[in-house]
Amino acid sequence: MPTRNLIGKDPDQRVKRSRETVIRTTLELLTEAGLGGISVDEIARRSGVAKTTIYRHWPTRSELVIDACSQIGAEQETPDTGDFEGDLITLLTNLAELLSTARWSSVVPSIVDAAERDNSLAEIHSRIQRDHAAPLRTVIERAVQKGEIPKNTDRSTMIAALLGPLFYRRWFSREPLDAAFVKGIVQNTIGT
Amino acid sequence: MPTRNLIGKDPDQRVKRSRETVIRTTLELLTEAGLGGISVDEIARRSGVAKTTIYRHWPTRSELVIDACSQIGAEQETPDTGDFEGDLITLLTNLAELLSTARWSSVVPSIVDAAERDNSLAEIHSRIQRDHAAPLRTVIERAVQKGEIPKNTDRSTMIAALLGPLFYRRWFSREPLDAAFVKGIVQNTIGT
Repeated sequence: MPTRNLIGKDPDQRVKRSRETVIRTTLELLTEAGLGGISVDEIARRSGVAKTTIYRHWPTRSELVIDACSQIGAEQETPDTGDFEGDLITLLTNLAELLSTARWSSVVPSIVDAAERDNSLAEIHSRIQRDHAAPLRTVIERAVQKGEIPKNTDRSTMIAALLGPLFYRRWFSREPLDAAFVKGIVQNTIGT
Repeated sequence: MPTRNLIGKDPDQRVKRSRETVIRTTLELLTEAGLGGISVDEIARRSGVAKTTIYRHWPTRSELVIDACSQIGAEQETPDTGDFEGDLITLLTNLAELLSTARWSSVVPSIVDAAERDNSLAEIHSRIQRDHAAPLRTVIERAVQKGEIPKNTDRSTMIAALLGPLFYRRWFSREPLDAAFVKGIVQNTIGT
């Protein structure tokens, strides 16, 4: 993520720390109360960072939220188990675990919601989404190169077929994301 | 939906009309501003229905929102094209169209978000979700009975495999829900 709001190219530790505190506080408030519960007043109060300092780094609440959101979600490693099915099981099992336990998973709906009414947030959210799908994309490309799946595989449809069902269970039907489910989705998608 | 907030068993037309006005206004505000933008004050102002009347029908904002939300989403017909693939294409094409155009589709994220922090809303949201999947469930059961798919098909995984990818594109990756995508998801799921 470009740290476009940093003051200068080599900000001192104090500036860096207060930025980190503000971002962490913003994420905490997002988790507790969703985007509707976020105000710069409350972030200043809780973080102990002055409102003027916050506004110097992020001229609007939206920019702060976008900055905080772009740091949401753990980086996923790209697995290399030796075969496509194994890689997918590893990736999706890891994702299922994150969806069930990681704090950001309860923040996501509030970003999705705000993105309905805020184009810049919608854009950054789509970008975060694509970034998060990068390891999956790598695994798919490798399978194509190794001839495990056809060259003309529609990558984007395959990604939706793999991630969509997990998101559906986490945020819509609220059913468990267990190992049997992950295996079912992977086998469904690769046709074993 | 049980109209448990109705006063008496045979409410007169005036009560019915003012209830409908309040629900319609609530849905309008949900669409425009999300759940965060909803207050009973604002609903009273815009609907012209007195706050005291609103509170008589719905003692809390949450109950009103739940009532409004439970009326979200068009009833889908259960198709009967003669074969499983045709039924699924019909159902999912219809859903893709609704997700792209229907007003409730921009309200859903705000319910999903609120459900993260409100158990009664989470419960009603899961129920709405199951209700909406009913035609799909019927189509799957019919295919099992006709021997088009195995008796031991995991219905719930299949529903997630069919609906999840559409939800993923609508609310997460924001990619188009076109005919090729719907066909890809259906063929992926039924293995043709």
